[in-house]
Amino acid sequence: MPSPHNIAILGASGYTGAEAIRLVKGHPQLNLTALTGHSRAGQALADTYPNFAGLGLPDLQLWEDVNWNEIDGVFACLPHGASQETIAQIKDKVDTVIDLSADFRLRDPVLYEATYGRPHAFTDLLDDAIYGLTEFARKELVGASLVACPGCYPTCSLLSLLPGVEAGLFNLSSIIIDAKSGVTGAGRKVSENLIYSEVTDGAHAYAVGAHRHAPEIDQMLEIVSSQSTKVSFTPHLLPMNRGMITTCYVQLNKDVTADRVKSAYKDRYKNEPFIQILDEVPQTRHIRGSNRCAIGLFEDRSEGRMIIIAVIDNLTKGSSGQAVQNYNVTQGWDETLGLNVLPVFP
Amino acid sequence: MPSPHNIAILGASGYTGAEAIRLVKGHPQLNLTALTGHSRAGQALADTYPNFAGLGLPDLQLWEDVNWNEIDGVFACLPHGASQETIAQIKDKVDTVIDLSADFRLRDPVLYEATYGRPHAFTDLLDDAIYGLTEFARKELVGASLVACPGCYPTCSLLSLLPGVEAGLFNLSSIIIDAKSGVTGAGRKVSENLIYSEVTDGAHAYAVGAHRHAPEIDQMLEIVSSQSTKVSFTPHLLPMNRGMITTCYVQLNKDVTADRVKSAYKDRYKNEPFIQILDEVPQTRHIRGSNRCAIGLFEDRSEGRMIIIAVIDNLTKGSSGQAVQNYNVTQGWDETLGLNVLPVFP
Amino acid sequence: MPSPHNIAILGASGYTGAEAIRLVKGHPQLNLTALTGHSRAGQALADTYPNFAGLGLPDLQLWEDVNWNEIDGVFACLPHGASQETIAQIKDKVDTVIDLSADFRLRDPVLYEATYGRPHAFTDLLDDAIYGLTEFARKELVGASLVACPGCYPTCSLLSLLPGVEAGLFNLSSIIIDAKSGVTGAGRKVSENLIYSEVTDGAHAYAVGAHRHAPEIDQMLEIVSSQSTKVSFTPHLLPMNRGMITTCYVQLNKDVTADRVKSAYKDRYKNEPFIQILDEVPQTRHIRGSNRCAIGLFEDRSEGRMIIIAVIDNLTKGSSGQAVQNYNVTQGWDETLGLNVLPVFP
Amino acid sequence: MPSPHNIAILGASGYTGAEAIRLVKGHPQLNLTALTGHSRAGQALADTYPNFAGLGLPDLQLWEDVNWNEIDGVFACLPHGASQETIAQIKDKVDTVIDLSADFRLRDPVLYEATYGRPHAFTDLLDDAIYGLTEFARKELVGASLVACPGCYPTCSLLSLLPGVEAGLFNLSSIIIDAKSGVTGAGRKVSENLIYSEVTDGAHAYAVGAHRHAPEIDQMLEIVSSQSTKVSFTPHLLPMNRGMITTCYVQLNKDVTADRVKSAYKDRYKNEPFIQILDEVPQTRHIRGSNRCAIGLFEDRSEGRMIIIAVIDNLTKGSSGQAVQNYNVTQGWDETLGLNVLPVFP
Repeated sequence: MPSPHNIAILGASGYTGAEAIRLVKGHPQLNLTALTGHSRAGQALADTYPNFAGLGLPDLQLWEDVNWNEIDGVFACLPHGASQETIAQIKDKVDTVIDLSADFRLRDPVLYEATYGRPHAFTDLLDDAIYGLTEFARKELVGASLVACPGCYPTCSLLSLLPGVEAGLFNLSSIIIDAKSGVTGAGRKVSENLIYSEVTDGAHAYAVGAHRHAPEIDQMLEIVSSQSTKVSFTPHLLPMNRGMITTCYVQLNKDVTADRVKSAYKDRYKNEPFIQILDEVPQTRHIRGSNRCAIGLFEDRSEGRMIIIAVIDNLTKGSSGQAVQNYNVTQGWDETLGLNVLPVFP
Repeated sequence: MPSPHNIAILGASGYTGAEAIRLVKGHPQLNLTALTGHSRAGQALADTYPNFAGLGLPDLQLWEDVNWNEIDGVFACLPHGASQETIAQIKDKVDTVIDLSADFRLRDPVLYEATYGRPHAFTDLLDDAIYGLTEFARKELVGASLVACPGCYPTCSLLSLLPGVEAGLFNLSSIIIDAKSGVTGAGRKVSENLIYSEVTDGAHAYAVGAHRHAPEIDQMLEIVSSQSTKVSFTPHLLPMNRGMITTCYVQLNKDVTADRVKSAYKDRYKNEPFIQILDEVPQTRHIRGSNRCAIGLFEDRSEGRMIIIAVIDNLTKGSSGQAVQNYNVTQGWDETLGLNVLPVFP
Repeated sequence: MPSPHNIAILGASGYTGAEAIRLVKGHPQLNLTALTGHSRAGQALADTYPNFAGLGLPDLQLWEDVNWNEIDGVFACLPHGASQETIAQIKDKVDTVIDLSADFRLRDPVLYEATYGRPHAFTDLLDDAIYGLTEFARKELVGASLVACPGCYPTCSLLSLLPGVEAGLFNLSSIIIDAKSGVTGAGRKVSENLIYSEVTDGAHAYAVGAHRHAPEIDQMLEIVSSQSTKVSFTPHLLPMNRGMITTCYVQLNKDVTADRVKSAYKDRYKNEPFIQILDEVPQTRHIRGSNRCAIGLFEDRSEGRMIIIAVIDNLTKGSSGQAVQNYNVTQGWDETLGLNVLPVFP
Repeated sequence: MPSPHNIAILGASGYTGAEAIRLVKGHPQLNLTALTGHSRAGQALADTYPNFAGLGLPDLQLWEDVNWNEIDGVFACLPHGASQETIAQIKDKVDTVIDLSADFRLRDPVLYEATYGRPHAFTDLLDDAIYGLTEFARKELVGASLVACPGCYPTCSLLSLLPGVEAGLFNLSSIIIDAKSGVTGAGRKVSENLIYSEVTDGAHAYAVGAHRHAPEIDQMLEIVSSQSTKVSFTPHLLPMNRGMITTCYVQLNKDVTADRVKSAYKDRYKNEPFIQILDEVPQTRHIRGSNRCAIGLFEDRSEGRMIIIAVIDNLTKGSSGQAVQNYNVTQGWDETLGLNVLPVFP
């Protein structure tokens, strides 16, 4: 075994930061060396996350105060904008940066600006960044110094769609993605529409026709298919903590059968440690807290259509779990290191 | 004011029965005269529904023991199969039967058998039954003696789709309905997959590609459009009590604009007391406990497509509320009598 | 019937304000004439409460802009401090003010200051205020111009304890109140500890040993018993919207039996329209949305002790429902006017 | 490292069985060798627990079909009654049986019969059984062949009370325990009162004055104090999956101060790996999925009283986690083996 790597987590007081802490802490090759938090610098981590009390974890500090000489790898769990600015300043001081924000996901700075409402300020870094949908990026990830982890919705959607798109089985312009997410997907944001009584015992769509994750899905579909596309993507907020479903509706190309689609998926994913093709309908609660993606493929009653349903834990496979998976791949390690956490059910 | 009608509720111990009790009890022209329940006959209603304690409501009894001479109208909240059998025996004894089961919704007995796995035993009654999607059936409802209330999913889906289909705005074969329901939609069924810990903090689709409500949606679309169709319909179970969303994806016909669609809906529904066209995305929690249907119409990023989102309370507009609304119409009364219950939020 | 009264609701954008709107809107003798909101003045009510869309309710405005000449009664749903200041300025312009804040509950300004951390600025008004625990204050309430509605915890606790304390059945120094509340009890406050993911699927006590409602409970117990007391009171926050339980532990005085206690309660409450003495254990969900208080009295396994459990909806009987009940009593009306809303279950 | 032990889990299809599987599967010294389930024998585990799909775990089988020669240790997750009968038949075939049922908790068979409504049929085994509240039973546990794991409520209550009772700080007859549990505490029982819509968004007490866990709490308090006692114990069911709170009210003996109590607890628990004494109020969600017990000690406003609040995950420290902890101790292993699972929050 090589000696463990020292890890800094930037933005440790948010939910993706917390999930990164949980996973890194249980990783046999990683030390949790530094935790940063802008507004809570100087506080004990347990003051904001009592679930981490008693573990001897470092206090929160400003990223400027981290001793970067001792850090090998970084998980950046910062808001977009803040992420690129911080990464620009520390990237040369460490070997590997895994970015969980949206800052390096879109390859086209013009599209970035149109989507996130601000120009991209570090386009040179953009060229280095690898889009880390692990199952479709392993080669490029080995040795990468900057990884852009996909958004939670794109992760779930693309794992549902790519095997069929790669194999040319679907009419690309027919794709409709109806997505549903638990509330942690919104992060630890303090706003009226996220307080308990505004969210519990009800559901609703949001950002209808215009969610920021849609261009990211298009981008990957276009790379894989060499066709231009604009998917229909509608997210919904559900009254649950963790968990995400994407229900994808696809029109099969001529002469493509449902069986052929199922075979293609089983074949494509047969050696994937975190992807399960189920005969049953997958449920979010059965993968809660794990790095799994469970997928079910179903023939529709409407001829020539299929329904592909995938579930992930938005904080794990949809965020910090995939980040750790990517870190493992960049180092040439066993991809499952630190990720054998079982789902917590019930 | 005419003298009040005496009402019997069959199957009063289920959830649609309970909601019918709540609404009938608050209705100025209806007396709650008899409540039936097969397995709990002889029990006080409050033993199974403590929320109805202290109201002086009748005990549960067998329907055979009801004094039918004093009953004017019936709300049948029975399982399919049991419903047609009971209605066949009491229909001639009362003026009006509002059936909340699936037994008289499908006009074609062959389709009924294919869908519900048993032959229809009372096809003569089927001919009398009016499909009571109130906003699209008023004329036929006046004076009707047997009303088949639509299922909750068809109610929400059809209210979303019919104005556009009537006006020929949509490509019928493009329709995809992604539906989500709270757990009361499954009724008061005691089964492992409905106990709290198997349902809370998670979500999943079910009956994918084959839900029993799909033929009912087809039937009404076909009547209105004079075209044959098979919609794509996928229901999901959400961890909440009441509430339903249908997210409908439609391809607009050539030269149809989103604005034209919005106008058509506003126009069609401008005098409807229970339908609200919103500019915002509707949320189930804001109509909880009321007979409202709130609808939002949105242009998709994918050209030529729209997303139509409707929310109802599955137990009220999706079931017992619409049943009361239908009763009002059959009698020629003000349609809103007893239905001005406001949503309970938060 | 007398002509309806015109009502202004101050602080209409909070949760007690919203519940007051729901109840006043359904009240046969009350018009909803003005709604005030400091930070949202000028907005349509439906912008902040979509559940009130389509009802033709007035927009939110500053209280300074209300035409006070046309207002008969006021429900003040403001935070403490703000409430006394506003009431001082409008009290002479209207006949009746029902205050839902803490500002006029404690009769002793020194205790008020110790409890709420600020001096009471309107002690003259304090002398006029009637503490409106309706069932124990009817005589004083008739014709009152200023009513201080009890807190939700005191309402539930005192309705549980007072019949026994009045009759001298309990050892006053033995009283322990373990209380549990749904999240709406915290109001529509936007703070990190109230966002969905920090509240759902978990529970905790708070303000242990020092909650602000404890002195209010003491005060009423002392008035009724003529003894000084300091109850033990511990509130807990539960992952639900509405609902409150108080579990009260009392030591019976010598020779007092459980049966005698039960008789005393049944006797004291036999004509109360909103209080139910149950043989079963009361559940919050069965009174959800109603003005009921359901109480169960149980002998403990530990000799000489009883456990008295009461449930209310914190927003209704614990707040705006009791406020309407008090308004009815001040006017000499039937106390149940506008309050026959049934529980919404499931 | 010694060679791993082979483990059989009896009653693997219930919730404590599932939690035992999760923990044993992650334990470095344990192999999951056999899983039994009466009504589901022959089924794949993933059919009943999809969360365990893909792990290569054994199918469910009848306990009669287990190859007992290869089993070292047993976790019995059976209902009371069934547990003693099965254990009687297999105990001699294995080295160590950890029983999670109630069958061997009460030392007095007369009390067992009075509490569980059936005579104890294996009183000889009762004499061998060690009551495994780990922190108070280590000496007896080493080498034990039969361990009776405490109930979830007794675990949480006793960890809250014993340090003070041992040190003679509390008036024993004053103890009141107000307990709250998540729904998994009821197991995977299929009954109407546990279906989602009957449990969510509400709370209630149950078994008031007479819960079966009360005698078990008495028994341990009596052993430690050499005094007879009958605690007041009232459990409540909360709308959450996992988590338990006990709020204990104690009267301090003369001249005992709150500081002295706090010191006694800190001292008693200073080396305990799973017990945390907090200054803040503990929350169940912060220990969710872990084997921790977090305790807060608070002075009451009522003089001479303290409030001791403890939280555990009822399925982990309250059940299967403590069972694994006990197994570790019986073998003389590091007590924390396999139990370093971090809480899952949010």
